[in-house]
Amino acid sequence: MTDPEDLATRVREGELRIHELEEHTDHDTAAEARRLFVEGETGTDLESIGDYTFPAERADPNIENMIGAAQIPMGIVGPVDVNGEETGANDGGAADGEHYLPLATTEGALLASVNRGLGVIRTAGGADARVTKNGMTRAPVFRVKGVAEAAETVEWVNDNFDVLADAAESTTSHGELLDVEPYVVGDSVYLRFAYDTKDAMGMNMATIATGEACEIVESETPASLVALSGNLCSDKKPAAINAVEGRGRSVTADVLIPGELVEERLHTTADAIAEANTRKNLTGSAKAGSLGFNAHAANVVAAAFLATGQDEAQVVEAANTITTMDARRREDGTADLYASVSLASLEVGTVGGGTKLPTQSEALEILGLRGGGDPAGSNADALAEIIAVGALAGELSLLAALASRHLASAHEDLGR
Amino acid sequence: MTDPEDLATRVREGELRIHELEEHTDHDTAAEARRLFVEGETGTDLESIGDYTFPAERADPNIENMIGAAQIPMGIVGPVDVNGEETGANDGGAADGEHYLPLATTEGALLASVNRGLGVIRTAGGADARVTKNGMTRAPVFRVKGVAEAAETVEWVNDNFDVLADAAESTTSHGELLDVEPYVVGDSVYLRFAYDTKDAMGMNMATIATGEACEIVESETPASLVALSGNLCSDKKPAAINAVEGRGRSVTADVLIPGELVEERLHTTADAIAEANTRKNLTGSAKAGSLGFNAHAANVVAAAFLATGQDEAQVVEAANTITTMDARRREDGTADLYASVSLASLEVGTVGGGTKLPTQSEALEILGLRGGGDPAGSNADALAEIIAVGALAGELSLLAALASRHLASAHEDLGR
Amino acid sequence: MTDPEDLATRVREGELRIHELEEHTDHDTAAEARRLFVEGETGTDLESIGDYTFPAERADPNIENMIGAAQIPMGIVGPVDVNGEETGANDGGAADGEHYLPLATTEGALLASVNRGLGVIRTAGGADARVTKNGMTRAPVFRVKGVAEAAETVEWVNDNFDVLADAAESTTSHGELLDVEPYVVGDSVYLRFAYDTKDAMGMNMATIATGEACEIVESETPASLVALSGNLCSDKKPAAINAVEGRGRSVTADVLIPGELVEERLHTTADAIAEANTRKNLTGSAKAGSLGFNAHAANVVAAAFLATGQDEAQVVEAANTITTMDARRREDGTADLYASVSLASLEVGTVGGGTKLPTQSEALEILGLRGGGDPAGSNADALAEIIAVGALAGELSLLAALASRHLASAHEDLGR
Amino acid sequence: MTDPEDLATRVREGELRIHELEEHTDHDTAAEARRLFVEGETGTDLESIGDYTFPAERADPNIENMIGAAQIPMGIVGPVDVNGEETGANDGGAADGEHYLPLATTEGALLASVNRGLGVIRTAGGADARVTKNGMTRAPVFRVKGVAEAAETVEWVNDNFDVLADAAESTTSHGELLDVEPYVVGDSVYLRFAYDTKDAMGMNMATIATGEACEIVESETPASLVALSGNLCSDKKPAAINAVEGRGRSVTADVLIPGELVEERLHTTADAIAEANTRKNLTGSAKAGSLGFNAHAANVVAAAFLATGQDEAQVVEAANTITTMDARRREDGTADLYASVSLASLEVGTVGGGTKLPTQSEALEILGLRGGGDPAGSNADALAEIIAVGALAGELSLLAALASRHLASAHEDLGR
Repeated sequence: MTDPEDLATRVREGELRIHELEEHTDHDTAAEARRLFVEGETGTDLESIGDYTFPAERADPNIENMIGAAQIPMGIVGPVDVNGEETGANDGGAADGEHYLPLATTEGALLASVNRGLGVIRTAGGADARVTKNGMTRAPVFRVKGVAEAAETVEWVNDNFDVLADAAESTTSHGELLDVEPYVVGDSVYLRFAYDTKDAMGMNMATIATGEACEIVESETPASLVALSGNLCSDKKPAAINAVEGRGRSVTADVLIPGELVEERLHTTADAIAEANTRKNLTGSAKAGSLGFNAHAANVVAAAFLATGQDEAQVVEAANTITTMDARRREDGTADLYASVSLASLEVGTVGGGTKLPTQSEALEILGLRGGGDPAGSNADALAEIIAVGALAGELSLLAALASRHLASAHEDLGR
Repeated sequence: MTDPEDLATRVREGELRIHELEEHTDHDTAAEARRLFVEGETGTDLESIGDYTFPAERADPNIENMIGAAQIPMGIVGPVDVNGEETGANDGGAADGEHYLPLATTEGALLASVNRGLGVIRTAGGADARVTKNGMTRAPVFRVKGVAEAAETVEWVNDNFDVLADAAESTTSHGELLDVEPYVVGDSVYLRFAYDTKDAMGMNMATIATGEACEIVESETPASLVALSGNLCSDKKPAAINAVEGRGRSVTADVLIPGELVEERLHTTADAIAEANTRKNLTGSAKAGSLGFNAHAANVVAAAFLATGQDEAQVVEAANTITTMDARRREDGTADLYASVSLASLEVGTVGGGTKLPTQSEALEILGLRGGGDPAGSNADALAEIIAVGALAGELSLLAALASRHLASAHEDLGR
Repeated sequence: MTDPEDLATRVREGELRIHELEEHTDHDTAAEARRLFVEGETGTDLESIGDYTFPAERADPNIENMIGAAQIPMGIVGPVDVNGEETGANDGGAADGEHYLPLATTEGALLASVNRGLGVIRTAGGADARVTKNGMTRAPVFRVKGVAEAAETVEWVNDNFDVLADAAESTTSHGELLDVEPYVVGDSVYLRFAYDTKDAMGMNMATIATGEACEIVESETPASLVALSGNLCSDKKPAAINAVEGRGRSVTADVLIPGELVEERLHTTADAIAEANTRKNLTGSAKAGSLGFNAHAANVVAAAFLATGQDEAQVVEAANTITTMDARRREDGTADLYASVSLASLEVGTVGGGTKLPTQSEALEILGLRGGGDPAGSNADALAEIIAVGALAGELSLLAALASRHLASAHEDLGR
Repeated sequence: MTDPEDLATRVREGELRIHELEEHTDHDTAAEARRLFVEGETGTDLESIGDYTFPAERADPNIENMIGAAQIPMGIVGPVDVNGEETGANDGGAADGEHYLPLATTEGALLASVNRGLGVIRTAGGADARVTKNGMTRAPVFRVKGVAEAAETVEWVNDNFDVLADAAESTTSHGELLDVEPYVVGDSVYLRFAYDTKDAMGMNMATIATGEACEIVESETPASLVALSGNLCSDKKPAAINAVEGRGRSVTADVLIPGELVEERLHTTADAIAEANTRKNLTGSAKAGSLGFNAHAANVVAAAFLATGQDEAQVVEAANTITTMDARRREDGTADLYASVSLASLEVGTVGGGTKLPTQSEALEILGLRGGGDPAGSNADALAEIIAVGALAGELSLLAALASRHLASAHEDLGR
């Protein structure tokens, strides 16, 4: 009984439910039957959606009720030139050398803009990038009777990190518990667990490990678990706790661009770019009550996430970026441009999640970062650093465009 | 000279630049040549990326340097049951009846969870959903000499809305200027233009129209344009200004679920769900310094955006959601569950951007919302309402899972 | 029975309650009896607290259970030099000329610092200051059954501003309703009423007027009032809605200081001050997840509030300030300093509240701003502008101190 | 030459500057001369301001250019009933038993409202209160060349806490360095130093100690100090970093009030209060983009700060409070009210600053908390706990008033 038409009919007639199809046939036939059913119900032709090119079974860990695939155009920018070598007191970055960065998007002009920025960065000798903090977090919320029990719970947690680490790490071969930070609000106690999850983005690993640790907390303290996530994690929401304390990788990338290069290639000046950045990305975002002090870092983060199989919904906090642009004045009065991006909570992995799907896996191979790194965690670090340089290129290019248009109109003004 | 191998060689040898390929051959061959070049440079095999199924030329407005496509698994949930009929004093919603909602994601269990929530909503008689505000914004920043000129500029803008509307609307056949709100920070003046962009998401329309209006501002006031976006828009950044004032569609969806249904289908109680929501989504997010008071609305928004060709980077603010869950007590002491989601700044469109690509276009057809609506804007309104109900289902399902696990352990506690 | 010892005894013996004393004697004797009682209970001597110098009855509208007064040292800074004259297209400010500003504080060095800044401002020719927005707000929250009723309520409110204005303004001889902005979150509808309250800070006026308007809303729509303040006002809490949309007066002050003056009087350079401001007040506050992008504006606001009888608890939002400092480069390569402060929600009044108390009233007289202005509202506008210039002076002085220390150490660095 | 008239004349004639008077006479005469000068310049009579009752010299550490004092009415509320006893696993609070709390304010009805709440708390058996975190912070900002140096600096700081602690603690006999947390934004490195400052609020102590530690950082790393405060402290600004991580004392207070008591004394129900709290303090503040999830905690904090000599400008962050109100259902279906306040960053001291002034010192004596505690820090802890209970009483009383008014109108509704 694996004829897709028959299966679709049985769904239509209520004999089968739409999510039960995989129990009766292979995954591709199930997807086809589901398409037939939906086409019948909605009067549509889902030919393109059905024209996916991977075995449906490979997507089994990633989706239910599959009908096919969305095809998002993917392009390439680069090379992304990263200076990661170790130098003296400096441990170096995880990424080094030149990398092509695949980006998937439907936003016209994005790749052209990022590519322009990357070209300028290359001519300037490449960008520096460093992961300055790393920790995937999960923060359960517990109920206590009141503040006295809350204080007792906090005290127990502060005194028993090792006990919690043993429990948490018993569930994972790779993850390490780095920290447990307690927060009290009335009769709610939140414990923010942070893990080194190596090359995995690590949300599931952190959740399972934290679940185990919660059982200890419940047995040793008066606290009773209400929810394994109490939103101080904070996952898929914009939150100052991530912007301040980080989540996943905190990564910074920067470049110093000679004034001459700014003029030749970006058709503006360091001063004009710095002014646009200050009025828009710093003062403007301040006035907007924003947690994002950048121009469009989310564009690069979202496109790189799509291409490499990251969790698209995490773009919400992964794109949290402060962009700085300063005119560094030289003795002769001219100025070079110092440009940086600092992403506080970039959650990325090179194993698990969507990274195993065919197109996503190939995209990671383009970067040379498919699978686990050596040492563990270095591939995810490198991915974070390269995305950061991509975001830096995007910021540079857009701010230069704004500043040069302004310069142009300033020139017209003078001509009046 | 359209042999892709030859073109790849010429790129490798520096004769052609990677973005110039489309000038020398058709789009598909250009993409192939680019793949060959990247494969050579990186020692990879990009077969899956190259196995896209649309004419590359159709993606020309959406990407540069194309090498192929990312294939993201797409599934179906639903039907989404929306009560949109007009009733008395009530104008009704744009969406009405049952709709299948396509979602593209790599997050396992997401569709199953949303589907469970949608089933409960259907049994409860469907959800209500309404767009309560609509306006796509663009906020340029101007430089003035100081506060005196700033005050003069603000006064002129407040007195000349019609002049600005004429200029802005001269650039568009559909868009209408709704409002211009001035903000002053020292010698920077920000003007937040808001437009009704009908069925288009409208960012480009708003940008072009605002550019035209800026010329009037520059000629009639002392203000000089620094950047066409001054971040009070605020695009692709989490910002309170969007959470408070809205951007794109502000949409709310809700449902009242009988207590019996909560117990039978969600295996918990209205009280337990309300408690989990308060401790996690309200108090937890408050403590986290968050702009997102929900569990995982971003999951549904991101997956619907991917499937239907929306701008993935706008998930950052589009997912901005407050979820409320209340136990509405009945006379007999039992309680029903009132559940709602309010998305402040959901930027969606059914025309333009990525909506024309084949798989995305088919996804909109499944919803019956491909292209412009009648009246204009009604398709985008309906899309916003259906996504909101999807997000509501996701919130319900996850909070019920948290609450029922808690109930289970509470029962164990009693058994001790 | 007005012997204070007897009254204290009766309180001690439970015959009288501590707040009932004014029913049995005059206000000063009641305060004395209360002191005697507290002294007895706590073994203290409250001589200084009892040594207040105003008739206790004058404080009757301001306090209950009075025992005396806190004496906070008050000093004077200035003159504050404000250029408020009307010039061409420019309507001018409410404050003009030189004013001494009284400040009450226990923070040593504050007045010296502000005074230094004011001296530099005077030498630079004075500061400009303008109120760019004015509106005291009150935002009740209503309960509705759900989103359909919410949409109906919003529509009614948007269509019936005049009806609400008539109701609101029937309760006040001075106040004018400027705007009613609706916000929907699930089954809660918030209406943010904004009033021109002239020379009164206006919180009470706005509350009473809004209460009257709420009765109309309840009778004409399905909405039912839950609380007269729903925290979108937002009173005495730091909130982006105030930072973005303003509350009370939105006021900006600025000054352009010649580079020579920066060097002579502040012992640093425009570039060094601008750098300190960017790294501390813009980037630092951005990273801190702050709503305050300034150095210590709250010091000046709090001290001016205390001296002039404003509501001390409103310092929370009244101090909300963005400070900008830019080096404006001249043709010869040297730079002048442009400095500004923009206070989004400065709630001030010159009538009502604590302004009638003797020391506070005298402080307003020093400023020439006691009581109602002509035209109505101009005194409160002028007070806002002068406080803003005071805050500007405080920012200038502190940032210069930071920058000059840095310059000094930079010089030492060069000397090594 | 100590005749005040003569001195005033010399100021008027430019022979003396207004801040130099103390060099020529005693402090009281200097203040008198200054008043005479200001009276002459402004045509005022400053009799009340001049009628202060402490030796001007005692205010010398607190103010410059003194002309007198602001007299703010002070009253008394209480007793504040705090259960601080140690019980089993529970370390107990610093405050225990009954305390009268002095409050200085010009906000009529505030003390009556707080007193009502305190009465209910007493009848309910008193409130619990605990300091759950303690640390006064100062966060300098350093300049580095770029991200490589930033990473190097962070690494050095993480490896050398002891070196920094030695340097910092060399400047203070009481303070202890608890933590140094590094944050990187481009070429700026922020180090957030946290200290246990015992019974002092500790801002000055922390600043001096941090200054010493900064010299080590500058000599051992490539980082160069730009400003001793880089706004991640964050002092006198509303900032998520304080709301999340705390500053000064993080303190929580709560009480469980029997349903009968809620009805008898507050004329409403636990359910109605919980509803008002959720719609106003949680959902309303969420929608407002607020960092303050309470009704009016700032009123109590500001009034207690004024009375006891705290830093009024710190009310900005000290009032940062999350209020929770829950109906705890009993088996019979009725509900008790659980009420709590959690203040994240309450900066208080019982030594230093304004605490030595006469009226302020007496106010601390009323509380039994003047000067240093035994053990050190316990007086400031107790002050934090008592203020928290005061804030709890204020929240209870206001929310009950809102809820009962609503109940009343609900009753009317039923009567229609």
